[in-house]
Amino acid sequence: MADHNALPLVILAEKFASLPGIGMKSAQRLAYHVMGMEDSDVEDFAKALINARRNVHRCKICQNLTEREICPICDDSSRDTSVICVVESPKDVSAFERTREFKGVYHVLHGLISPMDGIMPDSLKIKELLARINRGGVSEIIMATNPTVEGDATAMYIAGLLKPLGLKVSRLAFGLPVGGMLEYADEVTLYKALENRNDM
Amino acid sequence: MADHNALPLVILAEKFASLPGIGMKSAQRLAYHVMGMEDSDVEDFAKALINARRNVHRCKICQNLTEREICPICDDSSRDTSVICVVESPKDVSAFERTREFKGVYHVLHGLISPMDGIMPDSLKIKELLARINRGGVSEIIMATNPTVEGDATAMYIAGLLKPLGLKVSRLAFGLPVGGMLEYADEVTLYKALENRNDM
Repeated sequence: MADHNALPLVILAEKFASLPGIGMKSAQRLAYHVMGMEDSDVEDFAKALINARRNVHRCKICQNLTEREICPICDDSSRDTSVICVVESPKDVSAFERTREFKGVYHVLHGLISPMDGIMPDSLKIKELLARINRGGVSEIIMATNPTVEGDATAMYIAGLLKPLGLKVSRLAFGLPVGGMLEYADEVTLYKALENRNDM
Repeated sequence: MADHNALPLVILAEKFASLPGIGMKSAQRLAYHVMGMEDSDVEDFAKALINARRNVHRCKICQNLTEREICPICDDSSRDTSVICVVESPKDVSAFERTREFKGVYHVLHGLISPMDGIMPDSLKIKELLARINRGGVSEIIMATNPTVEGDATAMYIAGLLKPLGLKVSRLAFGLPVGGMLEYADEVTLYKALENRNDM
């Protein structure tokens, strides 16, 4: 926004533009939109920002984001704490919970190993995972990181640490997405689907 | 976001989703992003929101958004106040200022006549435009609303009010966009370009 614009508007647009996936044009449009909002709605928005940042932190057990000390999933006595599903981020926990099929618990790594980006195993919540396992009662670890180079490398690294402990370590199945068309599948997915074929 | 997510995060995502052009998926991603921001950056963002809403209002003369009583353009004695460029929104003022060619002043309507959406002439800043003209010293009004049904209708309506006052009323030229390809121009644009052709 050029300097003939009101400074507070320029500042607000810059704040929006600092968010991921919002370019300067959209940021400007959002700032103008805020100008047309009710005073009370703008205040609620500002409060929601600060409130989320201040009151949401990592669950002491699984590292997922929560406003409590222990998240509702870890705190739910009906969940099977012997099976831990290891994911990259809180978004992935949401994805699994939407399936309503998984009855175990989670562990959020908050990242994947990526030496190119300077993310080494120490930056992830791996120590916390090992500490959970050491407290006992865990029988299976499901490595549910993304099927990408970083996701695979992280899964392999953690599996290497856990197997000597005599734990069952599994990885999510790769294959054709349900409802997907065979002709549109990439070669690697198709190869994985062939390799992991099941008896009928 | 399902209910296993921390409530402050859900609320923040809903606030983002209430902005134009941001769906629930993006809103969720933005809310997670805020979780990773520095405390002070989140507070600055919240302050920018409130600050923009509280301190930015309409210029008493041209109705553009400004933090002062009179905006810098209306307050600039080097601008030609005898030529008023009438636009739909503050965004359009920014667009014209970027050309650095227009030395007159603006009038922001804050909308276009659109009976389908319940926007009638009374909802726009037309009274304020007439009051400016009545104060004297205005020789030309450039109708610079968008080349859409609503933009044209609004330009026609205002021109109808102003012509009896003996003012010169003009409309932006329609034609091929500079650098555009003739074969990709729509028929109406091409027709306008033909109709408004200039002697060489």
